[in-house]
Amino acid sequence: MNRGLATAVSDSADRQLLTALNDQIEQALQQSLERLGDDCPPRLLDAIRYVLLAPGKRLRPLLACLAGHAVGGPARAVLPAAVAVEMIHCYSLVHDDLPAMDDDDLRRGRATCHKAFDEATAILVGDALQALAFEQLGRAECDPGRLGQACLWLAQAAGPEGLVGGQMDDLNSDQLPPGLESVERIHRRKTGAMIRVSVELGGLLAGGDQSQLDGLKQYGQSVGLAFQIVDDLLDVESTAEEMGKQVGKDRDHGKMTYPELFGIERSRQLARQAVEQAIRGLDAFDRSAEPLRELAKYLLTRSS
Amino acid sequence: MNRGLATAVSDSADRQLLTALNDQIEQALQQSLERLGDDCPPRLLDAIRYVLLAPGKRLRPLLACLAGHAVGGPARAVLPAAVAVEMIHCYSLVHDDLPAMDDDDLRRGRATCHKAFDEATAILVGDALQALAFEQLGRAECDPGRLGQACLWLAQAAGPEGLVGGQMDDLNSDQLPPGLESVERIHRRKTGAMIRVSVELGGLLAGGDQSQLDGLKQYGQSVGLAFQIVDDLLDVESTAEEMGKQVGKDRDHGKMTYPELFGIERSRQLARQAVEQAIRGLDAFDRSAEPLRELAKYLLTRSS
Repeated sequence: MNRGLATAVSDSADRQLLTALNDQIEQALQQSLERLGDDCPPRLLDAIRYVLLAPGKRLRPLLACLAGHAVGGPARAVLPAAVAVEMIHCYSLVHDDLPAMDDDDLRRGRATCHKAFDEATAILVGDALQALAFEQLGRAECDPGRLGQACLWLAQAAGPEGLVGGQMDDLNSDQLPPGLESVERIHRRKTGAMIRVSVELGGLLAGGDQSQLDGLKQYGQSVGLAFQIVDDLLDVESTAEEMGKQVGKDRDHGKMTYPELFGIERSRQLARQAVEQAIRGLDAFDRSAEPLRELAKYLLTRSS
Repeated sequence: MNRGLATAVSDSADRQLLTALNDQIEQALQQSLERLGDDCPPRLLDAIRYVLLAPGKRLRPLLACLAGHAVGGPARAVLPAAVAVEMIHCYSLVHDDLPAMDDDDLRRGRATCHKAFDEATAILVGDALQALAFEQLGRAECDPGRLGQACLWLAQAAGPEGLVGGQMDDLNSDQLPPGLESVERIHRRKTGAMIRVSVELGGLLAGGDQSQLDGLKQYGQSVGLAFQIVDDLLDVESTAEEMGKQVGKDRDHGKMTYPELFGIERSRQLARQAVEQAIRGLDAFDRSAEPLRELAKYLLTRSS
């Protein structure tokens, strides 16, 4: 994601910013685990490293950092939140892949955690990563009043009204009434909530004011929707090699998706509209929000 | 726990306090779920209620509230943390009971979550409860500066250097060198960390100063140890009916325990010493800490 995006961006200062942020995010992810001492069992640490430091798109941390940049705050105030949202994202992938859930063997081109280690370890890795996410947030250097808000927002996005609720509905989607409302309900929470909160946390911890946070929320919501529509399209159109995970599973499992409901052309159009809506959320921002705008447009072109 | 403890306490004002706190804790647990709206899938909410509102000892929330009382802070400042520690505790039981972990069918006298619902739901209930715990904490009305500290402490106690790390080592305890060091290493994290942090969070959010927090930490550490030694003894000596869960499993699974290492009499003595050590941690407190002292002594007499 980051490297592809950096190449796609025309402005050279923005390209440099993206490259620098990319490095800072990877470094912060590494450092977040270096702190763990002898009390963390070595096999658990190995499995956490396997999951968190696997090559990934880092979309959520990048969104957090770019939102922080858009409101003009320092990167060091945002990086703990950037690490936190990636930890929540990674834990959710590990648990979703479990045999009792989606039962996947392949993730990001490698064996899933319970295949590379074992099921008990994978459950505990997920649990550990969720706790570590809030530990990271607790370490953020920002206005103390904003920290409680950040903790609340992240927990709501990750919890039963967000990520976990979306996964629960996704598993039982055959019991929901088929149609756009159900698809949106699942997407808004399963993928949307964490993408939106990544943007919001970046703006909050970097010191954004209420009107900036409102704009970032609209951006985050619409970018989350665009991301998910493109994800649905990729599941239909890509190869497993490109995606690094099994594809065509949505259709095989009878899951409701945008292409299933609207066909491929109309789904592409809906994704474009969502990106336009996201960019309109940034109308009040100057060119410091340009990388966020570029990222939204880049989502439409991604192939993995 | 609460009712038995209230009966055991001689001072009538302390008895009234314990009864009142008991009610406030149950009410706060109820209310924490009433807030959940339509975005939480109904089956997930049912399963969360089944787990969190099951009759339980409520040891951890009670410790948090009594620590708050000892430093003279208002109960409303501590209740969110009290709910949070019970949520973390309950989530850990649900995940520990899973087939890939301890594979238990019975908990608190009822079917475990994955038996009453299904495995995927049980995984998601645990994930949801951990997120809800931090959401609760984010809602605490206290000095904002203390909230970041509370988030950090809770996350560390719940994470790979605390609860999750202890469970990982417990699952793989046959690979640890047999002896006191390994038993203590597991107990300190699997049960001890969350008991200690319950006391610490109560003192922190109620406005305790550093020397009070140091005393509460010593109390919490030693009470956690006493609790676990008694738990080991109960696993040897109780019936499944009394405990509401399978007993004798430690020995059957070859797990290291205090009675296994030291025999029953010496283990009882170690538990008594841990309680004395806990009470010494409260030396600088006046009689507002009396219920904490009573609770520590009561732990030695519990039968479930």
